[in-house]
Amino acid sequence: MITTIAFDADDTLWHTERIFISTKEKYSGLLADFADKDFIEQHLDETETNNIKHFGYGVKGFTLSMIETACELTEGRITGDKIKQIIGLAKEMLAAPIDVLEGVRETIEELAKDYRLMVITKGDLLDQETKLARSGLGDYFSAFEIVPRKDAKIYKYIMRRHEIAAEEFLMIGNSLKSDILPVIEAGAQAVFVPYETEWFHERVSDEELEGKKFGRIETMRELPAWLDKNSEK
Amino acid sequence: MITTIAFDADDTLWHTERIFISTKEKYSGLLADFADKDFIEQHLDETETNNIKHFGYGVKGFTLSMIETACELTEGRITGDKIKQIIGLAKEMLAAPIDVLEGVRETIEELAKDYRLMVITKGDLLDQETKLARSGLGDYFSAFEIVPRKDAKIYKYIMRRHEIAAEEFLMIGNSLKSDILPVIEAGAQAVFVPYETEWFHERVSDEELEGKKFGRIETMRELPAWLDKNSEK
Repeated sequence: MITTIAFDADDTLWHTERIFISTKEKYSGLLADFADKDFIEQHLDETETNNIKHFGYGVKGFTLSMIETACELTEGRITGDKIKQIIGLAKEMLAAPIDVLEGVRETIEELAKDYRLMVITKGDLLDQETKLARSGLGDYFSAFEIVPRKDAKIYKYIMRRHEIAAEEFLMIGNSLKSDILPVIEAGAQAVFVPYETEWFHERVSDEELEGKKFGRIETMRELPAWLDKNSEK
Repeated sequence: MITTIAFDADDTLWHTERIFISTKEKYSGLLADFADKDFIEQHLDETETNNIKHFGYGVKGFTLSMIETACELTEGRITGDKIKQIIGLAKEMLAAPIDVLEGVRETIEELAKDYRLMVITKGDLLDQETKLARSGLGDYFSAFEIVPRKDAKIYKYIMRRHEIAAEEFLMIGNSLKSDILPVIEAGAQAVFVPYETEWFHERVSDEELEGKKFGRIETMRELPAWLDKNSEK
């Protein structure tokens, strides 16, 4: 019954959070004369949350938030040299090697034989596109959708555009808020693959999950077995 | 014969360059103690050109280039307060009212009765999407494609995805390099509507234009008449 499997990208197909975590560490190091790591990161998280309405998701907006936070935390005493180093961190992030999650490559390869595969992800267009290319997974996906947010309306729009009935559509991802709940709301199925860390923007409450039916696997390797059990072919 | 008309967005449907020009003026004002306007703008253009491979097109990448340039021109003596003001300029740009070009609204309204209309644009996803919504033109377009670059391959991909034959497809835009030449290369037709200023990233030489056949109109108001003359319905 399932014909199409869509995957989230960041922290579902390849590691992203690790790059953000290591960037935040370097960033805290740059500002170590002004405040301690926890204080800096908390302030950065707040700035980022406030700025999502202006800048959306992705490395460029995150970098503008790092710079804004640096100006605020240092009460304007940040040096131009350090600001340039922060911009350098952004360029490093954008050029970082793509670290595909364990088991993903083999699973994608196997599933591509029987299903239409697509990627649905937030973030910056250029960045996500080059990541897909560098991952070496690009050829397995027949569509690559970069969306400004992930809600039921967007998922319905994508299904309509690709002429996929909701019963045929399965979404896989590491965010309950973005990859699972709105897909269920759109009438399709979803499988949750938790990542090693949870992104603070994406937390959901137990109430929101109540009565919601979705799959859960611990690593991507378990997906073919889940499909054998849950989908008639 | 033409069934689908695709429009570039920035400086084809609405003014964008004006916002960049006025932002650059404010930016030069902020740095007036360090260098004169021409020198600042020339340095900014260079930084922007070098950074496109990292940051792509759009306001966020432009802002990172403004910040980088400020650090360089001042040899690191830029203050955190001024950097914050530059980030403020970015937020202003992203929130600026949408100024639809003269004649566009009426023309789009008229053409929507007879043609399928779409938008094909570069830039940041969230930014372009909110601009389309704020322009009040969103309902006239059946598709909105945000692309990392505009080459023949991308145009072919969009036509294939929407099942449009090249003979049925017409692109309208203000950039010979992005909206006209690659569309001709993809086997479709194009109409050039020059904007009041030419963007320095998008210049093409006379040689590149030699032998290329495309329409040219002075304002969007002339498009229906061009279609009557050039397309069988």
